Amino acid sequence: MSTLDGFWAVIPAGGAGTRLWPLSRSASPKFLRDLTGTGRSLLQQTHDRLAPLAGDRFLVVTGRAHRAAVTGQLDRLADDAVLAEPSARDSMAAIGLAAALLERRDPDAVMGSFAADHVITDAEGFRECVRAGVAVAREDWLVTLGIEPTFPSSAFGYIHLGDELPGHPGVHGVREFVEKPSSGVAAEYVATGRYRWNAGMFLVRPTVLLDLLGTWHADFAERLRAIAAEPARLEELWPDLPRIALDHAVAEPAAAAGRVATVPSDFGWDDVGDFDSLATILEAAGAAGGATVLGDPSLVEGVDSTGLVVPRSGRLVAVVGLDDAVVVDTPDALLVTTRARAQEVKAVVEALKQSGRADLT
Amino acid sequence: MSTLDGFWAVIPAGGAGTRLWPLSRSASPKFLRDLTGTGRSLLQQTHDRLAPLAGDRFLVVTGRAHRAAVTGQLDRLADDAVLAEPSARDSMAAIGLAAALLERRDPDAVMGSFAADHVITDAEGFRECVRAGVAVAREDWLVTLGIEPTFPSSAFGYIHLGDELPGHPGVHGVREFVEKPSSGVAAEYVATGRYRWNAGMFLVRPTVLLDLLGTWHADFAERLRAIAAEPARLEELWPDLPRIALDHAVAEPAAAAGRVATVPSDFGWDDVGDFDSLATILEAAGAAGGATVLGDPSLVEGVDSTGLVVPRSGRLVAVVGLDDAVVVDTPDALLVTTRARAQEVKAVVEALKQSGRADLT
Repeated sequence: MSTLDGFWAVIPAGGAGTRLWPLSRSASPKFLRDLTGTGRSLLQQTHDRLAPLAGDRFLVVTGRAHRAAVTGQLDRLADDAVLAEPSARDSMAAIGLAAALLERRDPDAVMGSFAADHVITDAEGFRECVRAGVAVAREDWLVTLGIEPTFPSSAFGYIHLGDELPGHPGVHGVREFVEKPSSGVAAEYVATGRYRWNAGMFLVRPTVLLDLLGTWHADFAERLRAIAAEPARLEELWPDLPRIALDHAVAEPAAAAGRVATVPSDFGWDDVGDFDSLATILEAAGAAGGATVLGDPSLVEGVDSTGLVVPRSGRLVAVVGLDDAVVVDTPDALLVTTRARAQEVKAVVEALKQSGRADLT
Repeated sequence: MSTLDGFWAVIPAGGAGTRLWPLSRSASPKFLRDLTGTGRSLLQQTHDRLAPLAGDRFLVVTGRAHRAAVTGQLDRLADDAVLAEPSARDSMAAIGLAAALLERRDPDAVMGSFAADHVITDAEGFRECVRAGVAVAREDWLVTLGIEPTFPSSAFGYIHLGDELPGHPGVHGVREFVEKPSSGVAAEYVATGRYRWNAGMFLVRPTVLLDLLGTWHADFAERLRAIAAEPARLEELWPDLPRIALDHAVAEPAAAAGRVATVPSDFGWDDVGDFDSLATILEAAGAAGGATVLGDPSLVEGVDSTGLVVPRSGRLVAVVGLDDAVVVDTPDALLVTTRARAQEVKAVVEALKQSGRADLT
């Protein structure tokens, strides 16, 4: 299996993952953790999934605080494959910087941008979709992968499908990107069969991305290209870049302008947003009855209980008579909640910061 | 306040308290633990509650494995105030041995026997009842304190009241002791107003107790008196003593023979049978809203949760969105359950023993 000519994998590796506290910490966030018990972090799994297509053509964009950890985990990559942002400036700046560098490095490049902290069940199915999308992106479309919804989630944005693209069977134009809807609206979307989840996965030629950005944010595109031309100016130019997501800066207006296409996809995707998501992923991976254990099962004594137990302190964890429990045991902090309340874990992180115990977050 | 002439406090200190695992361990059972956050163990609290009546007239009967811990906790007592049983032989042997020793030591003795691991809210009310009971016991009754039921518990035995005793207003004869009833039967008992909880608290002259025992178990009484006469024979005679509770050996037949009286009592009693009991005790002691914390409140971050949290490992414990949760965090083991399921904790202890991890029990 040969790699895909000119295909570059761009991995923005950011996000704190506070709803996965205490597994995810600000010093060691979600993407650096092995959350699925495979022995590989989510970042490493993202790399492994893309390597058959990209070979060694990777650009990872991360915060300075995490650069050493990222290069340590991805030790096959060249040192200049990991870019350190001077400060967090949201996804447009991170992905735009990669685009500006690639534009100069490889005129035939097609870049694919994929978050470092998502889980994908069917890696080969994912790569099939990327291959299809790259072919479309070479024709100067901004291409996104549109995930088949498995339930009417109110936690994700949606992609509204347009007509099929001539010459690309199964690939559709995008009428619009829709912000996270209510559950009721989401159910209507799903019922039509014309909506897909927006997983933030984009395939695009770097020049196309930067030119689209320049259409609505001329200064922004110009600064990114200036940094790429003179990397020494990174410190000078970076702090003034707007904090904006790629979706808002480019994808939404480009869809309105008829420049976006989507590859409808069904490869088992999850953004592992909280412990409820994680439990679903691990159960789908074939856990037996009782509570699902992420870690050493001999450390868990469950009596008539279901849910997710993460024994990461070496201590015995006994759970008696709880349904859909979430118990996450780490050396310095313990979380006990339920799958239904798992989203509220971020309230704990907030409370800890406010009470002067940021060392635990 | 002077002590009560000739009153000896006998404290059988046994029982594993497995339903309070992982706070209570076989090597450090319930009675040696500070379960109420007062800084004193249940054993020490039992001593403190009785000292105003008994002065230094105490006999504590415990297992050999715990003798050193008991003398360490009760360091004001004379060394011979703590008796070590060669092996566990249930309450009749333990309390009977104390009776046999006291019979020789103090012909005017009235002994009161009180378990080392119960909680009493109103210590002065308790002592009032003991004073009243001792006066009756001097007239050769076997006297028990009959606890006013606060709900129709199926976890306790009941005392069925008979007629008031002439000359002792408020003190009643006992018609019978009833084994733990079903909840339905317990509700009928409570509705009559003629039943009290049997807390296993007995006041009696040592000779009366041994003579009553001798009526139904002649050999048993004889062996106990032989040990008291020649303490060197303890090892020889002890192993063959019957394993039987005082209630069955003496109290039940004595009630049938019209020899038992009870002092109806209402001093706030609990045997701290499980974490549900413990939560009730601590809440009654005035916990604020949210989860009740036994330990350092700064170690607990509760979000919209109720129940009991015991942070004993120094780690932060976060509980999110759980009602009536029980979270007990110790350095080598963690328990998560609910108040309603707290009785099933003993299943964990059994499972650990069977899987070769008795070191954690």
